[in-house]
Amino acid sequence: MDTKHMQRALKLAKKGEGFTNPNPLVGAVIVNNGEVVGEGFHALYGKHHAEVNALFNAGDRAKGATMYVTLEPCSHHGKTPPCTDAIIHSGIKRVVLASKDPNPLVSGRGVKALKEAGIEVETGVLDEENRRLNEIFFHYIVHKKPFVVLKTAMSADGKTATKTGDAKWITNEQSRRFVHELRHRVHAIMVGAGTVIADNPLLTARLPNKKVRHPVRIVLDTFAETPLDSNVLKHADTTRTIVAITNSAPNKRVDALKEQGADVWTTPEKDGHVDLRALVKKLGEEGIDSVLLEGGSFVNDSAFKAGIIQRLHLFIAPKILGGENAYTPVGGTGVDTVAESVALKRKSIETFEEDVLITYDVESEGS
Amino acid sequence: MDTKHMQRALKLAKKGEGFTNPNPLVGAVIVNNGEVVGEGFHALYGKHHAEVNALFNAGDRAKGATMYVTLEPCSHHGKTPPCTDAIIHSGIKRVVLASKDPNPLVSGRGVKALKEAGIEVETGVLDEENRRLNEIFFHYIVHKKPFVVLKTAMSADGKTATKTGDAKWITNEQSRRFVHELRHRVHAIMVGAGTVIADNPLLTARLPNKKVRHPVRIVLDTFAETPLDSNVLKHADTTRTIVAITNSAPNKRVDALKEQGADVWTTPEKDGHVDLRALVKKLGEEGIDSVLLEGGSFVNDSAFKAGIIQRLHLFIAPKILGGENAYTPVGGTGVDTVAESVALKRKSIETFEEDVLITYDVESEGS
Repeated sequence: MDTKHMQRALKLAKKGEGFTNPNPLVGAVIVNNGEVVGEGFHALYGKHHAEVNALFNAGDRAKGATMYVTLEPCSHHGKTPPCTDAIIHSGIKRVVLASKDPNPLVSGRGVKALKEAGIEVETGVLDEENRRLNEIFFHYIVHKKPFVVLKTAMSADGKTATKTGDAKWITNEQSRRFVHELRHRVHAIMVGAGTVIADNPLLTARLPNKKVRHPVRIVLDTFAETPLDSNVLKHADTTRTIVAITNSAPNKRVDALKEQGADVWTTPEKDGHVDLRALVKKLGEEGIDSVLLEGGSFVNDSAFKAGIIQRLHLFIAPKILGGENAYTPVGGTGVDTVAESVALKRKSIETFEEDVLITYDVESEGS
Repeated sequence: MDTKHMQRALKLAKKGEGFTNPNPLVGAVIVNNGEVVGEGFHALYGKHHAEVNALFNAGDRAKGATMYVTLEPCSHHGKTPPCTDAIIHSGIKRVVLASKDPNPLVSGRGVKALKEAGIEVETGVLDEENRRLNEIFFHYIVHKKPFVVLKTAMSADGKTATKTGDAKWITNEQSRRFVHELRHRVHAIMVGAGTVIADNPLLTARLPNKKVRHPVRIVLDTFAETPLDSNVLKHADTTRTIVAITNSAPNKRVDALKEQGADVWTTPEKDGHVDLRALVKKLGEEGIDSVLLEGGSFVNDSAFKAGIIQRLHLFIAPKILGGENAYTPVGGTGVDTVAESVALKRKSIETFEEDVLITYDVESEGS
């Protein structure tokens, strides 16, 4: 019975996907005498937590009830008052949790506060499922750096574009829809200035019949070359666009980018380009919990070498492009020997009609 | 009951794999009064057919029995006398077939001969399964050209070797064993002279604890550059090695290759190289029913463009190599636009530990 209610709470939690970053996805269900009397989830960053929403929904019927909540309630004052207070005041008798708070500094405090108020607490119900749902949050809280996902799409012979640069379309509509879902789920999308110049992408999440939040846009732009009329700079006033430059960028260009509403970050230089490790650290400090890297092959090589990637989504389309000079997912200088290659671990294989999506975890942990 | 016996006959047929080319894989089971009284299969090219082996095995007990055989018995004198005669003389009362002979010139003749002798004949039991088992034979008989399989192995970022040429090992042992099984199943292996020069491969099928037949070796060698001390020329006296050259090859080199025991074929030239369509046609005429192409990226590009490939085995290993100048499965000039790409159709996805094998049919039919 506990499992059933927790499953419902996880389903509620998932509804917040794309809207809560860098907060976790949390759902709560209140059950009194076998009857569900309240439900809630964390719907938007800065707004009420799941527990408070469920309590509001339950009203007086929370008295003597059991609350199922997917994450340990907070016991500190943040953007909202502590959820433990609200639970204690509501008269809830028993709390069942999926996972404890992954932050070692506060983990267990919520449970302690509830127990001290005489509430019975159980933990670990569907803990694994919750960790999977909240992998971004769990990574971010522990590492203080965003969970970086690299997405690439190639032909069966490993090409992302023909030698002339044509890439429309390597994958099918279903695969491309999945990419927009990915974009919606992450906090930010990152590309190189080369991609902006070549493709002029919007870098927005476009999902028919679904409310989406556009991700923060990040352009790796050592020399501040992003064209001032590019799509990523349009609406930079409403959708944040970070342009990461280095001291090699000319001041005039930097000023022009700022005038277009870009949030220009001067980052340290490494091998003549933006230092990706330093950038990722700063993104974490700025509260960005996840990044989808849709880079060109040069940027992808640098990102693998910098060890900043946690996840790879590799689409393989049923086409042969050929060409020594065609583009591949990871270019740059690469490695000299197979022994030096970056190791991946396969997570899943999915199919989107004729396209295949292999999802990997990157074995080498970013530092 | 018919299905059960036919399944057994198919299982017997499979035992001949690698040894019967360009003949089909055929199995036969003789059942008298519900009891299996004889079994046989075509075990080696030039030797007895499955029906004759099963009849020999059954002896007198064939009288009045039913024979299950996976392919329509031959009614003509080839390397062996017609099987229909042997069946008729044995006293077999009923014959159940999986598939009719795919050769339009003789299809139905075996059935007709049996029926005229008063034998009851049924066809189509596990026809599909038999066609799958015998796809090489069915292709070869209809097209008179070998069934060409391209095998390639790449990292998750589409590289077959690092920029320095290191490829040891991209895939794991299980995947490499599968390649040796492939080599055993096909009639011939084909590579470019570049691969012979770079890797000096043996091009033999090596399977521990399994009897194998080494495939015929074919080297695409426009200018007759195959090194005289290369492994493919060793044992050219016992394992046939065809070296396909063009008129651009210097006579002295050609003579030297012949002296090493190579079977040197002068083939037409196309775009400055061996004309692959002409070569494949000649291979068919010479009775070679299947070729495994383990070419380099230049040869693979030419082969896709020539439309000679029917099947692609694509191994994807959980590694990132990177490198603009690393090697990819299909190089050469490639295509200019995605619209011009060669279309594939996915047949299956298998895993060998962390490696993924995607098998495709090539949609454009070779001509």
